Amino acid sequence: MKTGKVVVVGATGMVGRILLGVMKKHRLKPMELVIVGSSTVGKRKQTPYGSLKVQKMEMSVFDGAELAFFAAGAKVSKEWIPQLRGRNCRIIDLSSAFRYEPNVPLVIPSINGEAIGDSDLIACPNCTTSIALMVLEPIHSYFGIRRVYLASYQAASGAGWQALQDLEMQNRRWVRQGKPPKQGRTSATPLPLAGNLIPRIDILDSAWNGFTKEEMKTDWEANKILFIPHGGKEIPIIATCVRVPVRRCHSEVLVIQTETKVTPEVLRQCLIFAFGVRVLDDPDNWVFPMPLNMEDREEVGVGRIRVIPDGEGREIVLWVCGDQLLRGAALTAVEIAEYILGKKF
Amino acid sequence: MKTGKVVVVGATGMVGRILLGVMKKHRLKPMELVIVGSSTVGKRKQTPYGSLKVQKMEMSVFDGAELAFFAAGAKVSKEWIPQLRGRNCRIIDLSSAFRYEPNVPLVIPSINGEAIGDSDLIACPNCTTSIALMVLEPIHSYFGIRRVYLASYQAASGAGWQALQDLEMQNRRWVRQGKPPKQGRTSATPLPLAGNLIPRIDILDSAWNGFTKEEMKTDWEANKILFIPHGGKEIPIIATCVRVPVRRCHSEVLVIQTETKVTPEVLRQCLIFAFGVRVLDDPDNWVFPMPLNMEDREEVGVGRIRVIPDGEGREIVLWVCGDQLLRGAALTAVEIAEYILGKKF
Repeated sequence: MKTGKVVVVGATGMVGRILLGVMKKHRLKPMELVIVGSSTVGKRKQTPYGSLKVQKMEMSVFDGAELAFFAAGAKVSKEWIPQLRGRNCRIIDLSSAFRYEPNVPLVIPSINGEAIGDSDLIACPNCTTSIALMVLEPIHSYFGIRRVYLASYQAASGAGWQALQDLEMQNRRWVRQGKPPKQGRTSATPLPLAGNLIPRIDILDSAWNGFTKEEMKTDWEANKILFIPHGGKEIPIIATCVRVPVRRCHSEVLVIQTETKVTPEVLRQCLIFAFGVRVLDDPDNWVFPMPLNMEDREEVGVGRIRVIPDGEGREIVLWVCGDQLLRGAALTAVEIAEYILGKKF
Repeated sequence: MKTGKVVVVGATGMVGRILLGVMKKHRLKPMELVIVGSSTVGKRKQTPYGSLKVQKMEMSVFDGAELAFFAAGAKVSKEWIPQLRGRNCRIIDLSSAFRYEPNVPLVIPSINGEAIGDSDLIACPNCTTSIALMVLEPIHSYFGIRRVYLASYQAASGAGWQALQDLEMQNRRWVRQGKPPKQGRTSATPLPLAGNLIPRIDILDSAWNGFTKEEMKTDWEANKILFIPHGGKEIPIIATCVRVPVRRCHSEVLVIQTETKVTPEVLRQCLIFAFGVRVLDDPDNWVFPMPLNMEDREEVGVGRIRVIPDGEGREIVLWVCGDQLLRGAALTAVEIAEYILGKKF
């Protein structure tokens, strides 16, 4: 797919590197590719598009650009994106900076690509929400969703590169000392993650009744992307988000209450034919999605598919797992670019 | 608390060792203490009750015993307990062997101690269920429970000593190779646990609609211990049980639907005053229960306490964490002994 000049902001970061890989794999062919970073400015860097010089962030890097990806976090997006708007460059923001602005489309192309319209700024959803939505969308379209309970098992990579490094360092201490460390800040928490679980991700606010921002995001974003456009009413997602000592795959237990009766056979068909979903469901033979088999894969894996026998066939329980950096972030951004360039989903 | 002769079967195993520690801490004073093991028979072993010789399993070890603890797994219990019954020895079984026999009481003394009656065999519940029940009991007595959704984060120790060793070995491979191993059987699964999640615990059966035995146990046991005796009707617990790379604390997300309206203040009071429960709930300051702070503690920690605002105050979400070997196994057995010896709960 040919495109004009493309700028990738945050190209040397964890998501940025995956993003360049997905762009190449999906055969995006920019006439010119500019990579912008903060740490290794001026140095050349090996990328899937060959060796490229890391540029310093300044407005001139966007001159003549057709597409700009922002993968450097909300702070950078908030500072630079407003200056860049209205300049004929379509901006794809991977951060949370503009997700909840009413006039900024929040998009997963296979679900609500049409929301992109001619907006010059498109936001990508949070990773936990993206992974859930790949499975919630086909279920909503088949059976109508009434209510969702979500318990997450989120990887260290979601807290950034440093958190992943910290986990590995804590693991070394565990091996050396024979037990997990009692102390050890990660870049996201004052607590160690190795051998531990951290049932808080992101901040809390008194308006949220004890829920964290990460938990609220799943509700806000699923409603903006899926429930309100496809059905017109708000559907609650009641989430508990937990960090687990895993590298880069997020997993989730989803309990889904539906409007109409579900049979296990129809549910299975609905998931087998869903875009971007891979059914791995033979638990008797240890077949289900998990970090071990979902890392580096574009699909969201779904397994442990159950329909509650006493729920009048209106309650589903699932286990999903997806690569947080790939399906949860970079892939959505590339799909948005593909949609803009004319690909149909 | 003085008692006659006590026999501990499986005393050299992981649960058995914790059991001897809890017996001592709770000041159980046996006139004679016999420890039975399978691997180090004839050797002396340091215990909290001093150095004791490990006895071989045979019926004569129980001669004159007042109490016998069975902590050597279901197979040993099934083989030996039937021979031992009717001999004036009260048997406390920590395995799953007899839990579902209608005439064998399944007991957590602070919840249904009265079920012990004069039965000479008393079963202890599964660890995941025990940890959940410490919190479900006070909530059921205050508000009446209608339905529970459970997602678990279960430690390696629940799969036995070998699984815990395997996790540590896999961690060493992770540190050495820079990434978690792709292969590595544990004693319970053909899959490695380090850096991974395993969404299956115990076996599956076609009668269970895709649920595993571990998941069914939470429903069966919670009903036998709590719901049917205290309310008279069956309440569904819909569980998804997942093994996580943690050493010996089980954690759970619980969504609890109640009969009557819940206010956050009353809920908090109900949990603060509950036996065996410790409220740790200041997430803004990173205060919640987790493996890091609950290992080696008798209480079940509860945090992330939320009442769903749209649920007409009839829906609660909690995070609980407890030591699987201690609160999940050994402590219940010792409490049963204490109850038999006259302690009031």
